[in-house]
Formats: sequence, structure tokens, C-alpha cells
Amino acid sequence: MKNIIAFTRGVPPAESFPNEELIECTRQVINEHSAQVLQYGTAAGYEPLREYIARQYSVDIEQVVIGQGSLQLLDLLCRVSLTEEDLVFVEQPTYDRTLTIFKRAKAELRGFRLIAGQINIEEVKASLEKGPTPKYFYVISDFQNPNGSVMGIEQRKVLTSLARQYGFLIIEDSPYRRLRYEGISVPSLLEISPDVVIYMSSFSKLVSPGLRIGYMILPKNIAKPLIQYAEDTYVCPSFLNQAVVLEFIEGGMLEKQLNHLLHLYRPRLRAILSAMDSRLNGFGEWVKPQGGFYVGLTLNNSINMLKLKDTVLSGLALSDGRGFFLSGGSHFIRLPFCALTEGEITMGIERLADVITASWK
Amino acid sequence: MKNIIAFTRGVPPAESFPNEELIECTRQVINEHSAQVLQYGTAAGYEPLREYIARQYSVDIEQVVIGQGSLQLLDLLCRVSLTEEDLVFVEQPTYDRTLTIFKRAKAELRGFRLIAGQINIEEVKASLEKGPTPKYFYVISDFQNPNGSVMGIEQRKVLTSLARQYGFLIIEDSPYRRLRYEGISVPSLLEISPDVVIYMSSFSKLVSPGLRIGYMILPKNIAKPLIQYAEDTYVCPSFLNQAVVLEFIEGGMLEKQLNHLLHLYRPRLRAILSAMDSRLNGFGEWVKPQGGFYVGLTLNNSINMLKLKDTVLSGLALSDGRGFFLSGGSHFIRLPFCALTEGEITMGIERLADVITASWK
Repeated sequence: MKNIIAFTRGVPPAESFPNEELIECTRQVINEHSAQVLQYGTAAGYEPLREYIARQYSVDIEQVVIGQGSLQLLDLLCRVSLTEEDLVFVEQPTYDRTLTIFKRAKAELRGFRLIAGQINIEEVKASLEKGPTPKYFYVISDFQNPNGSVMGIEQRKVLTSLARQYGFLIIEDSPYRRLRYEGISVPSLLEISPDVVIYMSSFSKLVSPGLRIGYMILPKNIAKPLIQYAEDTYVCPSFLNQAVVLEFIEGGMLEKQLNHLLHLYRPRLRAILSAMDSRLNGFGEWVKPQGGFYVGLTLNNSINMLKLKDTVLSGLALSDGRGFFLSGGSHFIRLPFCALTEGEITMGIERLADVITASWK
Repeated sequence: MKNIIAFTRGVPPAESFPNEELIECTRQVINEHSAQVLQYGTAAGYEPLREYIARQYSVDIEQVVIGQGSLQLLDLLCRVSLTEEDLVFVEQPTYDRTLTIFKRAKAELRGFRLIAGQINIEEVKASLEKGPTPKYFYVISDFQNPNGSVMGIEQRKVLTSLARQYGFLIIEDSPYRRLRYEGISVPSLLEISPDVVIYMSSFSKLVSPGLRIGYMILPKNIAKPLIQYAEDTYVCPSFLNQAVVLEFIEGGMLEKQLNHLLHLYRPRLRAILSAMDSRLNGFGEWVKPQGGFYVGLTLNNSINMLKLKDTVLSGLALSDGRGFFLSGGSHFIRLPFCALTEGEITMGIERLADVITASWK
């Protein structure tokens, strides 16, 4: 039996973890700050790391909340600010776990299709004119999960001005922004219009998911009840892990790590795009990402993803594209490429092409 | 101005943290298991630690969930199993954060007063006979927070048989059980009747709160949806911290640490009991704890805690006793003693006696 090539979860590869550095940072912070980092603390997170994040994004420290991954903070945000039947706009496709959180909060959801990686702004305008106004518009602006696309600068500008005009907030989820392997970045929505943006990011994709450190930047009037809700739920996050990451950053290790990741992932991105170009041409469409973790493949209408899902015998594992959509999605495949070697990527795409060819006949 | 002696939060003192051991354990687990512990994992927790806990308590591994502190797991339990107006029984007083969680879940709460540290079982029986039946009875059986008392063996036996008879579950919250400085322990409710008990504990009071590791043992049919809910909320807890604690245990360091804690806390318990005996006699009542973190002082009716609260000028910080009660509590003071030296304890109780004497006149 063939080894299965898993195009499933978007996780960093084990070889990306900065083991020695994390050991050294742990030694440092326990030796120097054990009374703080091994103790209970405030629910908002380790103060020195909050300060660093506040400086990095030019916001006030009261706007910064650090939690055990950014998803948990999104859940808290829903719990303190979303009431039943509040409307939330999302991209389509979008991150499946986020959809679960919003659905669980009983929000009403409206999806806006990404066409060639972009929201149709006219469609958004029309929806806003007609009403009702959403409370939030959740977007993954850089290297979208699951699509890999980057929101254009024009869309960013119009979207933020619409938010201001109609009075909704944009939730900008941005864990991949610093993982750009080609081209140059566009300003984040937060940079364009900090007054209408709630920003989420994390150290899971840059350092290690196992540390469970995500953060959120949000208006003070929402940050305050969210921090209280966090305290009432889990007292505080692990300050040890947060201090370790700060030590990592201040010791200059994050910059090195980012360099390492770019060198590790760039050839993987090139490998998947080149394999898709040569093997999947004519079977579907995809945006060519310049960074992040994913390529999103939309198969031709005649090819149903569901027929391909049970492809273990072909040595492939694929996740169900429907999870990323409010409805539909059976032609969609998310292809994470960072945790596979170039050889695995090429072989995986070959196998995928073979399965498609076989079931398309 | 005097240094303030804080009888407020129940936290372990910084000198109790096993710094060197945690550094060493971190080094070990990152060197040996970085691919697992720095990665995402299953929401139920780090499998080897789950196995250890399952063995320790003679339960199946599927019953064990490890999260970022046990309070968070209680919140998840409420979210998956408690519907509005479900009835929950609690001791009075009880842990304030738990009351917040239950209230937030919109549970109906009924409190049973602790008289000399014990629930009046006849009162519980009468309430059950009259109905309605609660879904849960939340108890802190060993070294109760905030009262310091230990539930008697008879109460444990009757309570578990009532749970079986009427069909409710006991939530046994047991973070202090292993911190016994005097006397011998009684079997836990879980040991007496594992079929009617959900058990909660953590490593916060035994190793370090900053690691954020709590666990829950619960029936498989509730564990399964709870784990799914956890995954949908925070993907997974930090496996790094959980692996560090397992390494700590397997290296024999937990036993040493427990010994260290008993030696550190025993004289503090004796100091507070002796100071209270000599200075607070006649002002109120308290159970004499044999372990844990707290002595609960119930002042005479004529002495109102609220008048004492603002005692900063007297060099004392006290928390508001009303937080531990559904109603009332203004005569109650929780006195945590583990994070104060014997000198501070003696001086703190003197100051308290002085303030009481002054305001009682």
C-alpha cells in the first residue's frame, strides 16, 4: 500500500519548529521571571507581550488581548458581542472553524463568493443598500484560508469605507500575513482603517501551534467585557508560553525563524503551483498564492469532489470542501502545501490528477 | 505606610515553583517529542498524560479531558449539557468563579449551607423528595474553597447514593485533595461511586498555575460532545505544557514537590490557626482545616464584613465574602494562608483582630 499524502489540515511541519531556541527561551524566562510566568495572571495576557503587540500595530495596550489561539478569542468575541440573529458577512469559501463559531452563536450568515480570489464589492454594496447591516464582516485578507488569495488594495479601501459608512466592523483574521514567499504585501485593513477593524493573528504559524498563542486587537469598549468574560471562563492564559514567545522575539529569533520559514515554504509553493499547472490544467481553477499555507482548487462543475474524497486507495487524503462553504462546496479542494516535501507535493498532485482523470471518464 | 498583607486570592507562593525541574522537563520533552508537543493535537489533551490520569483514577482514557485549567472545562460542561433553568445544587459558601459559570449558563441555583463544614443531608433529602431534581450537585469535597472543610465520609456515602437514587451527577471539584498537612484522607466521591461523579482537578496548586493544566473525568457520553465543543472553541490545549507535567511526574518530581509543599504549607496552616485561636476567639466561627489553601471565617452577626473591607489603612486586603454566596455572605471572610509567611500570617490576623475590635466597639 502506498504512503498516503495528506492534503488535509493546515499545520506547519515539525522541521519548522525552533526547538533549541524555545528550550533556551524557556530557561531564560523561568530563571528571570518565574514568579510571574508560573503564576496566575490577568486574563488579557502577559503584559510585556501585550505591550510589544501594541507597539507593533500602533494601538493602545488596552486594545490587545492574548489568548490560547485566536479562535478562542473569536468565540469570546461572539459571546460578549453577538446576539441571536445578528448578521455576519463572510467570504465564500472561508475558514471552516470560524463558520462553526458563528453558527454556534446563532448568527445569521451571509456569504460573498470569491471570484478569482476577490469579493465582488458591487455585490457587497448592493446588499448593504438593501439592508440589513451586518455586525461583522469576517475576512482573511492575506493568503486566505482555504483559498490562498490576497484581497486587493482597492477592495480593502472600499470595504473599510463601507464599514465606516454603514457602521459595521471588519474582523481581519491574519495568521499568514508574514508568510509571503513572493511579491510585495499590501497594507492590512487594520493599517488602512484601524477604527473599523478587529484584527486577529497568532504565533501558531510563525513559531509553534503547541504554544497556543493567538491575539486580538479590538476597540476598547469590546475589549473590556471580552477580557472579563475570558477571566470568568479560564482565569488567564499561560503566561509561561507568552513570555517564551516574547523572549524569542526580543532575542531576534523570530526574524531568523521567518527567514527559515520563507526558505522552507517557498520551494513548496513553487512545487505545488508547477505540479498543478502541468497536471490539473483544464480540470478546474485556482488562484496562484504568493504565500500562506494553501492553494484552493475549484474543480469544474462536472467533477464532484465527493467522488474523490474516498481516495485512500489512491494514496491521497483530502478534506471535504463543503466545510468551507455555507452551502455547496462539493467542487472545492483545499490543498495545504507547507507540511509536505516537494517530492510529496508533486506526487500528491499527480495522484489527484489521476483520480480526477479516472472518475471524469 | 504599612505593607499590606493580602488575604485575597488563593494562589501558591512563587517560592513553591519548581523552576529548575520545569526547565529540565521542557528541555527533555522538546528534545524528544517536539513534533508532537509543538504541534496541534487533539482537543482532549496530550494522550500520554490522559493515559496517566486514567490509570491514576482507574477510569477509561475516553473519560479524561485535559484543558487550560479546570474552570474552562466546567464552562464547556455547562455549554454542552446545561440548558436554561436546569437546576444545580451548590454548597454555601462555594467557589465564586464557579457560581459565575453556572449563573452565566442561566442555571437555576440552590445553595445548601455548610454547618461546621458539612452539608445538612436531611435538608438535601427534603429538597430532593419535594423536587425538582437537580442536574448537578457541585461540591468541593476536600479543603473546600472558601471554607477549608472536608466533607465527612457519611455525607459522601449518602450524597452519592442520593445521586444514584434520584439520577443526578455530583461534580466533585478537587484541586486541593493532595495538599493535606494533617490527619488522614477520606475516599473521594469518585472513589466511592464513580458512576455518579464528574471529577475535576488540576496541576495549578501542585506544580504551577502558569502551566494552565486542569482535567475532568466524566461519563463518556458527556465527554464526547465536550471534547468536540472544545475542539470547535480552541482547537486544542498546549501539549507542550501537558508533556512537561507528565515528564515532571514520571521523573519522580511530583512526589518531591508534594513533600516540599507540605513542608512549606504545614507551618503556615498552624500559624493561621494558632493566630486565629488567640486573637479571633469570640468574634466568629471557623472550621480548622487540615490542608488546602483556606480558612473560612464567619463573623458574628453583629460584625459586618462590609465595614472591614476597606481596611487598606490597617494594612490588610480582604476579598468580599458575598462572592461565595448566592445571597448573603457579608459576615464571611476567606483567609488564604499558603502565599504568606508565618510572620505575615500572624501580623495579618492581629491586624484583622484590631480592625474588628475597633469597629465592634
